This record gives sequence, structure tokens and C-alpha cells, in this order.
Amino acid sequence: MPEAIAYELAKKQKEISVAEFFERNKHILGFGNPTRALITSVKEAVDNGLDACEESGILPDLYVEIQNPHEEECIIIVEDNGPGIIKQQIPHVFARLLYGSRFHAVRQSRGQQGIGISAVVLYGQLTTGKHAKITSKIANDHPAVAVELAIDTNKNRGEIQHQQIIHWDKPSGTRIEVSIKADYKRGKRFVYEYLQSTSIVNPHARIVFKEADGTEHTFERTADALPKKSEEIKPHPYGIELGTLIKMAKQTNARKLASFLKNEFSSMGDRTVNAVCEMAQLDRNTNPQQMSRDQFFAVHQAFKKVKIMAPPTECLSPIGETLIRRSLKSETQEISPEFIFTASRPASVFSGNPFVVEVGIVYGGNLPKDKPVRILRFANRIPLLYQQGDCAVTTAIASIDWRRYGFDQPSGTGVPVGPAIFLTHVASTQIPYTSESKEAIADVEEIENEIRLAFREVARKVQTHINKKVRRVKTREKFDLITKILPEIAKKSAHMLNKPVPSLEKVITRIMDVVWIEDVVEYEKVRGRPVQTKLNVSNPTGQAESGGWIAKSTIMVVNYKSKPQKFNLYALYPKGAVVGEVHPKPTKVTDSYLKWSLESIEPTKKIDVTYELAGINKGDFDENDLYVQNINPSFVIGADKWEGD
Amino acid sequence: MPEAIAYELAKKQKEISVAEFFERNKHILGFGNPTRALITSVKEAVDNGLDACEESGILPDLYVEIQNPHEEECIIIVEDNGPGIIKQQIPHVFARLLYGSRFHAVRQSRGQQGIGISAVVLYGQLTTGKHAKITSKIANDHPAVAVELAIDTNKNRGEIQHQQIIHWDKPSGTRIEVSIKADYKRGKRFVYEYLQSTSIVNPHARIVFKEADGTEHTFERTADALPKKSEEIKPHPYGIELGTLIKMAKQTNARKLASFLKNEFSSMGDRTVNAVCEMAQLDRNTNPQQMSRDQFFAVHQAFKKVKIMAPPTECLSPIGETLIRRSLKSETQEISPEFIFTASRPASVFSGNPFVVEVGIVYGGNLPKDKPVRILRFANRIPLLYQQGDCAVTTAIASIDWRRYGFDQPSGTGVPVGPAIFLTHVASTQIPYTSESKEAIADVEEIENEIRLAFREVARKVQTHINKKVRRVKTREKFDLITKILPEIAKKSAHMLNKPVPSLEKVITRIMDVVWIEDVVEYEKVRGRPVQTKLNVSNPTGQAESGGWIAKSTIMVVNYKSKPQKFNLYALYPKGAVVGEVHPKPTKVTDSYLKWSLESIEPTKKIDVTYELAGINKGDFDENDLYVQNINPSFVIGADKWEGD
Repeated sequence: MPEAIAYELAKKQKEISVAEFFERNKHILGFGNPTRALITSVKEAVDNGLDACEESGILPDLYVEIQNPHEEECIIIVEDNGPGIIKQQIPHVFARLLYGSRFHAVRQSRGQQGIGISAVVLYGQLTTGKHAKITSKIANDHPAVAVELAIDTNKNRGEIQHQQIIHWDKPSGTRIEVSIKADYKRGKRFVYEYLQSTSIVNPHARIVFKEADGTEHTFERTADALPKKSEEIKPHPYGIELGTLIKMAKQTNARKLASFLKNEFSSMGDRTVNAVCEMAQLDRNTNPQQMSRDQFFAVHQAFKKVKIMAPPTECLSPIGETLIRRSLKSETQEISPEFIFTASRPASVFSGNPFVVEVGIVYGGNLPKDKPVRILRFANRIPLLYQQGDCAVTTAIASIDWRRYGFDQPSGTGVPVGPAIFLTHVASTQIPYTSESKEAIADVEEIENEIRLAFREVARKVQTHINKKVRRVKTREKFDLITKILPEIAKKSAHMLNKPVPSLEKVITRIMDVVWIEDVVEYEKVRGRPVQTKLNVSNPTGQAESGGWIAKSTIMVVNYKSKPQKFNLYALYPKGAVVGEVHPKPTKVTDSYLKWSLESIEPTKKIDVTYELAGINKGDFDENDLYVQNINPSFVIGADKWEGD
Repeated sequence: MPEAIAYELAKKQKEISVAEFFERNKHILGFGNPTRALITSVKEAVDNGLDACEESGILPDLYVEIQNPHEEECIIIVEDNGPGIIKQQIPHVFARLLYGSRFHAVRQSRGQQGIGISAVVLYGQLTTGKHAKITSKIANDHPAVAVELAIDTNKNRGEIQHQQIIHWDKPSGTRIEVSIKADYKRGKRFVYEYLQSTSIVNPHARIVFKEADGTEHTFERTADALPKKSEEIKPHPYGIELGTLIKMAKQTNARKLASFLKNEFSSMGDRTVNAVCEMAQLDRNTNPQQMSRDQFFAVHQAFKKVKIMAPPTECLSPIGETLIRRSLKSETQEISPEFIFTASRPASVFSGNPFVVEVGIVYGGNLPKDKPVRILRFANRIPLLYQQGDCAVTTAIASIDWRRYGFDQPSGTGVPVGPAIFLTHVASTQIPYTSESKEAIADVEEIENEIRLAFREVARKVQTHINKKVRRVKTREKFDLITKILPEIAKKSAHMLNKPVPSLEKVITRIMDVVWIEDVVEYEKVRGRPVQTKLNVSNPTGQAESGGWIAKSTIMVVNYKSKPQKFNLYALYPKGAVVGEVHPKPTKVTDSYLKWSLESIEPTKKIDVTYELAGINKGDFDENDLYVQNINPSFVIGADKWEGD
């Protein structure tokens, strides 16, 4: 009776509520074990607070507290100074999965799924049976509302269990308090690390963290301006799925293909629209609502063949190289690394989503030489702590032949071994996480490629630096030898011949035959003297605000060649820094470099070039990146060939 | 105007349909790139077909076809001979996410989320804009119905685009045809491997696979009986979350705590129920619907303190050690490994879900000695192909100190290096996958522990075997030396003294001083002679059906001790095998071993013990596992001390 079976089975088929699904599959949300549950809960609440503040143009002031009433339970409290949430929305925002404001917007934000914070409330209810407590205040002249929330998992709806009007001593904000099953003993260290990393890449946020034993840590704000607000944009045509294109065409108000393409996508100017229509052999005036699948397919293919401008990047808020440097510095305080290099890629697109990749490498110091490099991952300014093994970042790093860049890599593939830390940040309007727990980036080819390119770029810098260093060390050895032994020989010979000791400078220059360039960077605390930074004008991201330090660079140029030398010298400086006193007078000052047309330097003579930088933190700038022009660069030690204009 | 902001934000808040969510987050479902998308699609369709057949007691007969009309597109066709699906259910089953029959059942099945197959349809629509075609026939005397399906992602509902009644030459079954974006060139190899692995651990299934170029592979059925059907059970109290307990109490029909505990949980007999109530200091008659959180908390704590019987295992369908062996054999056909060992753990529980862990290790042969061991992972009889790095299986293996078991492991942690393949199967009523793509098991402590224990067990066997081998080799060297040199010396001495060459047997036995046991296993094809297997009686899982081979074991026992020896010999044999002719007559035959009370063996004398096994495949059994009793086992080479009854 197979008929009976099919009918029998039909009776068992039923809908699964999304809350029920995740209640059963809590590990998918990052609550697989009590240690991770603690970190995930703090992370979701903090991400939410930061997003709320930034979206509303408020400098975030977060308070995080963890109580540990008994071994298996933690109470997590996170308060922000954001715009608050109106009462009617509280059950939806905090106790309904797949509900939110950020999912439908093409714009970089931490939350993008409409799951995170409700998942914490769900997990709390599941493991402790207690209700979450939400307090919200939407304006200074409003009272605050405090609500106790439960989730009806069969319906995926929040239910207010209790509510009251209270006084809350804050202009506006939201506070969440959830009891969860968690392993505080094992987890607290990670919470601290997570908050520290978060504060480094979000320097505009102030975070106070109170541990269960009452210890308070304050991660102070180091930038007083919000990062550039990420603007909502339209999807980019590159990599958009055919089905998405069809769906968009069904929902557009445009009545013509041309206006549909122009209005619903970014980077589609008139000329590109025409090129696409032409390539697809379709009339510009075709009604998109009446197009066939094959016609859409033609448009879709045309997207791939026509050159389309890169996506606008105002939807993205990268960390920036200075902050990446600073983050890496802070990770390596006790290691005194030899150098830090960074690289950032231009914006690219996957499935219509713009993204940028930024990377950094710290090298040397006390970092272990025989261990795999440490990998730090960030996505939309969130530190990723778990699932490193299957993250696109790791896969991309592992796919590079690092032996070419001076690292150990036993089989020419895999995470390289060496004294280094690799940092990656992916910023995108949509991070393709491998799961709702947002811990690893999926193996999207476009993203892996960009990460690979970024690391190749920074690896070349590392290699150049190491080569330069090796060359400089060798030259110095030669130089030391010459300046020590030759005079000895000269002295002895002169003595034997009873003649005066000859001047050896010419001989030395003939043997050395190089121009020697060396620099020193010193920091000086600014006292009383106000530093004029361009922060809020040219650098609204606040990525390199004052800190009250001046970096003084002294570049020594010695001519060990036998003829006078006259050439141009260039020094790069970090974006956002402000140039102070410079000597000698530079020929050109841009927002990223200084240029000097040096006067002719006689053999064995030395000149000093000095300049000051303000508007940077101590340590943001350790070493000058120097270039020369109008001289054969192979005669120069300490600077490379200027490739710019 | 913070007030304005909160109201403004409220307007943007909205529900996200689950279909829309996964359309955007297709990588979470395993469709992150076109290679994986191919494998995921085949996997979901095949899993569905197998589940449908098994649930209905039908031996699965699957047909899988992949067409590759152009470079970026594949058409995937999967047909089963299951019970079919009634027409009204087709849009729900195939085009509605979070809908199904297996989610709410505590029972081992492949599908458990109600997402998989609809996700394939969704991905197809998203990437090709084409509709999925479903054909279903629910009984021989019914016509088949063929339906074209679309998904309205805003509503998460299937929409029938076209339907017709057709003739389908099959008693009953379901056929799905989906066009998807996929990389056939890169993916086809993995599809073949996936189907091969699937067929090995599902020997009751016949799978025909037609490649795009028309090549057909048939993975024949090797067992004619379905695995024991996994029965639905109640959740076990161990590890159940407090919130789940409260929810169950709200939904139960029981009006008394005692009956609630007894009816809604497994392994709760009267005695256990009483112990729990007593420990929780609650009256047996308390109405569960009126209990407070604190009272539930007391019950929840009592669950941890009271000893509760292990969960019933009829809800589980493990692969079994024989099949694991066979799977490993097939993986290593060209490697001729030295040995294969397996171990399986008793059932355990996490979050109320019973589970068992089975493992196997293949060692030696041509496997590379300087590479990390290869890890094969299975969950509920599904091969897991991706995300190995973050799977509980890998974490558990990496956490063992393998150097203690003779493997290389550079830092005493991590995947060990050595000539081996490690297989793990986790069978559970709910596999805690790290994401909806079902590729890795989450870091649930209970599961990691069991995997660790299972591998320790099998590693000990490996080590014992290696030690035994080393000992045997050493003894044989000694033996060869003695039997070669002593006679030479004797001959020479006799010659010099002009005396007859003396008998050396006594001397040899005095020097050797051991009982030497050695075995040979030979296979013989059964021709014409019907093999009487107990298959459908004692071994309804069909895990070791005939195959038409007889394994003939010859165990040679030689007494190289100076006194006669009389002892008991035991030989273990695989479950499900059938014992044929045995000589000498055994004292005892159980379903897992044979026992002989051997007659006294004189010094230097040898006896042969032989027996036949039917009902196994060639190679299922390579080597006897031998034990001795009533003799000091340290005098015996080739058998260990019998620890049984």
C-alpha cells in the first residue's frame, strides 16, 4: 500500500518555526558549548549597541557587565547610549528571529541577519528558563521603559511578561540583561580579549567592562569622531545572481530596461547601460516586467562582458592602515617586533556586494620562529574568534607559496611557519559568514582572491624590507671593515715609509661607491602647544587623531661615491598625519609624501633632512619609507627607486 | 532629536522571510561556490531519497544523473523508488524552507532540518532563473504527477507554475530535476566520491550514476535487507536544557510530575522517577503545569545527580564495525594496508539526544608516512566532505597525545602524522551540525569526549598489534637463529667427535620456551553451494551478508616449551558471520567467538585448528584475534590473555 504511506507521511509534514529551529540547533548560532555561549552573547549585544549608535551618529559609550551568580550561570548586561527602541518594537527586536532593519540595506554594518540578539534571548530562556530584561529610553524628556521578555518559540514571537516605567539617568539608550548558561571561568579571558580587539578597531567607542569580581576595565575612546557613516547603495551588477536580477525586475517601478538598470544598480551610468543593452541585443525601452528568462540571461551575460566601474565605496567603512598598524602594535606590545607592514586592496564585488580587504603583517621580535604564524581576523570591524580553520582568510593564506617570501612552509601549502602575526579585515555590505554564528567567512572565490592579492602585496613589502636590511647589513660590514682596516694599513705604511698618513676619504668612497641613507624617528610629547590637526576635515574617520605626539624624523644622506651627487628624495608619511617643521624646504608636499630636490652633495659629505609629523599616535610611524629619483637606485643603500609621477 | 531617531529606525524594522534569508546567505547552506553547490545539491537530493525509502521500508534504488548543458550550468536529476509525495505536499516539501517531517522526531535520519531539498530548489531558481521539476507517483495504480515549482522567497512558499498527469513506469517514487549554477569540471570527481562513500555505508542501497558524458556507474546493493529501522523515542533526561524541560511540561497531557517524567522521557522507570522527585524534594503528584522555575530547576539538577539508565538505542542505526572495515578497505584498495582496527562506543547522550560513535583506523601499506593522517567523517551515514578543520571529529583527534600510540605529532597536539586513515561515524537522533550545510559537527563536549574515547580504544589496539608484531618478529629471529645455528654446531661437533648428530628438539624448546601460535586466513568462492546465513534473523541490519565467500582460518599451535601444554584457545569472529566446518570440535560457539579446550600438546609438537566462516565479504576478516586461557600468557606468542567469562 504505497498510497497509504504517502498519505501517512503527509500527516507528519509540518512547518518548523525559525525560533524552534534555532532552539534545537543552538550550536549553529555559536552557543555550542558554555564557553562560546558567553562570548557569543557579549559579542551580539555589543555589536548591536555599536551599530545602533553609529547609525544614529552617536559616539558609542558601552557598559558591559558580567555577573556569575553560580558556576553554570552568567548574567550579561550590556548598555549603550544609542537612540533606544520604541516600546512596540522591543519584543520584535529582542525576541523574534529573522527580524531587523539591516538585512535589506546594502550597507556595511555588524548585524546583517536579524538573528543575533534574539538568539541570545532565546538561548538564555532555553538554558536558564529566565526572562530577558530590556530597558529602553528614546529621548531625554521621555521616561525609560523596562520590559521582561519571553519568546514563544512555536510562533517565533516575543511576549512581554512584565513592564514598567522607570527613571533612567541617561539621555537615551538601551540596556539588555540576560541570564544564560555559561562557563565564566573559561570564558572570561576571551570576553576581555574580544572587547580589547573591538575597542582597537573601533577607536571612537568607549567601552567599560565590569567583571564578575567587580574589577572594572575601561577601554578609552582614542578618536573623537565617528567613522565615516556607511551609506546605503544599490547592488553592483558584478556577480549578481540571475534569479536576483529577475526578482529585482519584478519589483522595480521602472518601466524601461534602461531606467531599471540605471536606477536599481550602482555604477551604471548612461554609457554603461547602453553598452549592456547593446551587448544583450535588447531595446533600451523593453519593459523589464515583461522580459523572458532568456532576455534576463542575455543581460546577465552582458554584465560580465561590459566593463563596469568599480562599486562606490561610501557603503564601506574600512579600518584603515594606520588603525591596523595600531591594532597590531597593541597585540605585540611585549614582543617588540622588527616591523609592521600593511596593505589594502581597492574595492571589489561578489554577488553584487562591494567589499574591501585590508591586511597587515607584524614580523620578528620575540615572536616564535618555529610555530605557524598567528592569524587575526576581522569582518566589518568585528573580531572573529572561532572556526579559523575553515575561514576564507585561512584558506587564502594557506594557498600562497610563502617560501617565496622567506617563510617556512613545509609542503608549499598551508599556514606558514615564522615569527609573524597576519591580520585581515574584510569590510563588506554583506559578509558571507559560513553560519549564523558569524565566526568564519565562506569560501567565496572573489574574496579569497582579494585576500591572496593583499597578502602577496604585503609579503613583497616584507621581502623587500628583509632584502634591503640584508643589503644594508652587508654594506655596513664592508664599510666597517674599510674604515677600520684601511686607516690601519695607511698608518702602518706611512710609519714605515716615514711619510705623513694620507687622507683615505677618496679611497674609501671608491671602494664603497654608494650613497648611504639612514633615518631615525623620535617621538616628543606635545606640552601645552595645541596641535593643529586636519582631523575633522580631511580625516573624518578619526583614524589618526592627535594623541599629543610629534614624530621627528632625521634622514641622514652620506655620499660615498667619488663624484658629487644631486638627486630628489621622497619620504612617504601616513594618511591623516599633519606635517610640521621641515628642513631643508621641501619642493613638494602632498597628503601622503614630501619631496626634496637635494642640493649637490660632495664626496664623503653628509646632509641631514628633518621633518615633523603631528596628529599621530606614538608608534604609528617607526621608520621612513624613502625613495630617490634622478640617481641610479642601485648606488643607493636605504631608499628605493621612486616610481611615482 | 533622539526621539525621532527611534521612531525613524522603527519604520525600517521588518520581518525577514527564511527563504529570503537563505537566498542572501546561500553559502550557509553549502552553496558558497559553484563546485560545492554541485555536491551539496546531489547530496541533499540523495539523502532525501534514502530517508524516504528507509522510512517506508523500501530498499532504495536511486538514479542520479548530471547534465552539463553549458559551462556554468548543471541539471541535476535524482530519482528514488520511495513512497512518493501527495500532490498537495509537493510545493511544501520542495519549495518551502523549514518544513518537514523529521525535525520533530527523536530518531536518526539524514534530514533533520526541513531545509535541504528546498534549498536546492531555491539555489537553482536564484542562479538559473529556472523552475524545478518534480515528478511523484504514490502507487502503482495511480498516474504520476509532474509539477514545475517556483519559490516566492518573500513569503517562503512554493508556487506551482505548471502541472500535468503523466505515465511513469515505476511502482512509486519521486524524481527531482533542478538546473543550478555549478562547476561540473571541478565538481564531478567529488560527486563520484560522495556517491561511492554513500554506497559503502548504505550497502542496502543501489545507486546508478550517469555522468554528463553518458558514462554510467552502478554502485550495486551488497545487502538485501534494510538497516534496522530507527524508532522514534522520547528525549533522554541527560543534558536536556532547563528551558526545554519547562516547555515540555507546558505541553504535556500529564497532570502529575511523576507521570510527566515517565511518559515524556526515555529511560525513566518508576524507580528513577521516584529518585528524581525525592532528590528534587518535590511531591510526585505536583502538577507540572503549575510548577515554578525554581521547582523545574530542582528537577533539572536532580537529573544530573540521579543515576539514569543509558538511552534506548533503537532510535539509532550505527554503521557497524564490519561495514566500517569494508568502507576502509574500499578506500585503501591500492594501498594494501597492514591492518584495520575498529571500535564502537556504547550509546551516550547530549542535550537529551542519544548518540553513538564508531571509529576505525587503517594502518601501514603504501600510505604516506610523513603526511598528516587522512580523516574520513560520517554523520548518520552521510559522508562529510567539507569544513574538516572545525569539526568536532578533528578537534577530538587533535586533542589526543598520539605520540603515546606510536604516531608522530610535532607539538603533542594536532592531527598526527603517520601512514593511517582515521574514520569516524557519529549516529544520533540529532547531529549538531555547525551550519545548515551539514558539513561539520559542532564542538559539543559530550560528542568530542566519546570520539576521543573511541580513538583511544582503537589506538590501544593499534599499539598492542604493533607491540605483538614486534615481539613475534623478535622471537622469530631468535627461532630462526636457533634452528639454523644450533644444528650446524651439532653437526660439526658430531662430525669432529665422530658421533651421530644428536636430536636438538629439547635444547631448542629449552631456549625458545614459548608456545607459538600463528594463523592464516584464506578465501574461497562458494560455487553452487548455498550458504546458509543467519542474516535476516540475528543480523537484520544486513551488515554482513554473504557475498558468496568462505573464509578458511588455519591456526597452528606449536609447543616449544619443555613440558606438555594443555590450555583453552579462543578465536573471535565478526558479528553476523556464520560458522561452518570446525576442526577440532569446539567446546563452545557463541555469536562472536569459538572456544577450543585443546588436548595436551607434547614438546615440539604442533596441532592445527581450522574453521570456516560464511556470510562475510572477501577481506572483511584478515587475521584472527586469538586468546588463551589456563596458560601463563607471557609464554605465548600470537595470542593474548582471555579476559572474558
